[in-house]
Amino acid sequence: MSFSIKEMAKKARIASRQLAKVTSQKKNAVLHSIADNMEQQTPQILKANEKDLENGQQNGLSDAMMDRLKLTESSIRDIANAVRDIAAQADPVGSISNIHREESGIEVGKMRIPLGVIAMIYESRPNVTIDAAALCLKAGNGVVLRGGKEALHSNLALAECIYTALESNDLDRNCVVVVPDPDRAIMNELMTLNEDIDLIIPRGGEGLIRFVSENSRIPVIQHYKGVCHLYVDDKADEAKALSLLQNGKTQRTGVCNALETLLVHKDIAASFLPMAAAMLAEHKVKVHACENSIGYFDGAIPATEEDWDEEYLALEIAVRVVDSFDHAIEHLEAYSSGHTEVIATQDYSNAQKFIRSVNSAVVMANASSRFSDGGQLGLGAEIGISTSKLHAYGPMGVESLTTEKFVVLGDGHIRQ
Amino acid sequence: MSFSIKEMAKKARIASRQLAKVTSQKKNAVLHSIADNMEQQTPQILKANEKDLENGQQNGLSDAMMDRLKLTESSIRDIANAVRDIAAQADPVGSISNIHREESGIEVGKMRIPLGVIAMIYESRPNVTIDAAALCLKAGNGVVLRGGKEALHSNLALAECIYTALESNDLDRNCVVVVPDPDRAIMNELMTLNEDIDLIIPRGGEGLIRFVSENSRIPVIQHYKGVCHLYVDDKADEAKALSLLQNGKTQRTGVCNALETLLVHKDIAASFLPMAAAMLAEHKVKVHACENSIGYFDGAIPATEEDWDEEYLALEIAVRVVDSFDHAIEHLEAYSSGHTEVIATQDYSNAQKFIRSVNSAVVMANASSRFSDGGQLGLGAEIGISTSKLHAYGPMGVESLTTEKFVVLGDGHIRQ
Repeated sequence: MSFSIKEMAKKARIASRQLAKVTSQKKNAVLHSIADNMEQQTPQILKANEKDLENGQQNGLSDAMMDRLKLTESSIRDIANAVRDIAAQADPVGSISNIHREESGIEVGKMRIPLGVIAMIYESRPNVTIDAAALCLKAGNGVVLRGGKEALHSNLALAECIYTALESNDLDRNCVVVVPDPDRAIMNELMTLNEDIDLIIPRGGEGLIRFVSENSRIPVIQHYKGVCHLYVDDKADEAKALSLLQNGKTQRTGVCNALETLLVHKDIAASFLPMAAAMLAEHKVKVHACENSIGYFDGAIPATEEDWDEEYLALEIAVRVVDSFDHAIEHLEAYSSGHTEVIATQDYSNAQKFIRSVNSAVVMANASSRFSDGGQLGLGAEIGISTSKLHAYGPMGVESLTTEKFVVLGDGHIRQ
Repeated sequence: MSFSIKEMAKKARIASRQLAKVTSQKKNAVLHSIADNMEQQTPQILKANEKDLENGQQNGLSDAMMDRLKLTESSIRDIANAVRDIAAQADPVGSISNIHREESGIEVGKMRIPLGVIAMIYESRPNVTIDAAALCLKAGNGVVLRGGKEALHSNLALAECIYTALESNDLDRNCVVVVPDPDRAIMNELMTLNEDIDLIIPRGGEGLIRFVSENSRIPVIQHYKGVCHLYVDDKADEAKALSLLQNGKTQRTGVCNALETLLVHKDIAASFLPMAAAMLAEHKVKVHACENSIGYFDGAIPATEEDWDEEYLALEIAVRVVDSFDHAIEHLEAYSSGHTEVIATQDYSNAQKFIRSVNSAVVMANASSRFSDGGQLGLGAEIGISTSKLHAYGPMGVESLTTEKFVVLGDGHIRQ
């Protein structure tokens, strides 16, 4: 396949200028067309997906990878409905905030505008092709999608649904560019195209994200990992704390908002840890315990320094007894991944202090870390979670794909 | 001089955690101490500055560089008063916005927090040492300041005023780190310290900014150049347009918000350009004119493709006649530097369309480009101007040195 990624990015830039100006109505019409096309094209999409699955089997993909790759009639319908949900969300573009008059007499406000062109680099999930395209289009951005080679046929079949939707609504099909060759060299070139791409969002393992962050000339949204903590304060309601622990650790394990470390104040350890141990044992959770907590757990493994940094993504947890509230904060300052931290406490001052002191992307008092998700926090669909503080911090919805420009209205005003 | 920049950045990170939690009152007390110390230490600062000026003379610095380097009793007082103005501004840290209750029952809001540690890389102006430190401290950030070697003695003398202010207010002096060696290798190492530095703001020539952007592993605020445009629409009030042209081009020339290109609608060219030519001649402005406008100017130079990209920073302007409103927009899409663009028009629809279509950082109708400045737009002091859309776009005040985290309040809520 012969093509130039540089040319494709330039075409996306040109198309994005048109897209930035279209009405919400038009953008929503495109989104509905995409959803409708997906449902109409289901047989073709499944056929393409079948090809990817066969290749995957031949290449010995893991069960987990095969599972992420697989589409069904019902999963296609779910993805289409998610696109309709995005269409139903408010359009952030064009809203003006904080209009005020300066001493000079000029009126100044800020207007929300699209970022321009966004590149997504992702691995084997074909649903990202549609989700990311829909969110970027909603925010008025062009998008370059570079998915994994395992999903190439599925991605190209889904891309057809997008291209047809754009064209049937009289928009440039280059608003969305699905890179037809997942070659590494092409990805490397993509990361240098800072003239035509404004932001890169990598989704995948830590290795991919680190590679993109260190090599890109374009700003990158970083989401390394979620080592989420629950700190059970000495003033905690133990029943609530236990329920937060169970929900955070056992409801779903392979997600970044699952709990990975439990910190327990020493004054409540003797009463709380036996209950915690019983519940964790019941759910077959493997425990890595510090020397002051290991006695409470049957079959626990001594925790090492590495455990405090570990994102298990499994029925596994690190447990540490801390001497004080401040000791808990120190642990977080040393080991937090910047994702989500929770305090369980009934003490007003400690709750306030925790919320103020801990600067992870999501800080909670008496709520499950599992709420750390764009949908649960009221953003609608999420394009990713940023664990670095620049531009966006935490779950990113449509608004995070926009920025604000200054608008100045005068009547011949000049500066004195 | 032997020191480790890596160690210094780590110390700034640790100090910044303390700083993130202090009250506005304490931060303002530090700022007032800095201002007072500067006034008390004026003789020492001037002596250090004298040394830099002598070295500068020996090394043959240009007059412009020497001028930027020079401090006087009165300029020191001005800088001190600017610090007091920053103290008087509102503190963005800690404010919570958009608190709402989700269906699940949790309450969700966003709280403004400091970014962490910011590195400034700048050239010969010693006032940046104080301005940048004051703005970063106000926003609760640690800061690493790497100024130019020409200003080293001045910067170290000013640093003493900051260190004393921090210590007399019981704060860690490492909240502000003034790098004592402007060696290039140390700057290069600084750009790799992404564990301890969250943002780099380079201030200086395009070469410096491009070098930092392409080599940094830390996010960079980019401000390449300001090629500001005035588009005189066929429906413009010619007297107002002329006044915007005069103010934008001639009030101050060496600044990024000065006008560099004039676009004129063909239907108003015959009436507007003779007036413009007379005014520009009177101010001795050199004109680079397109073939359709060159006849109006005495001694104009034919404009080349390069002129449309040029930031003259001098009494020099490029002039182009455009066929239509859309042609003006096309010119901007091709040549805008993303800084500031102005339309002069009395037509409501054209003003609206311009404001909506042009996505530079500051877009104006009937106001001088010279208003494109943090102070004039109501931000108070400005730490820089971003011409890239990520994180901040346009003039950046204290709020741009912060981010927002999610805050979630529950009462034992778990996810279903």
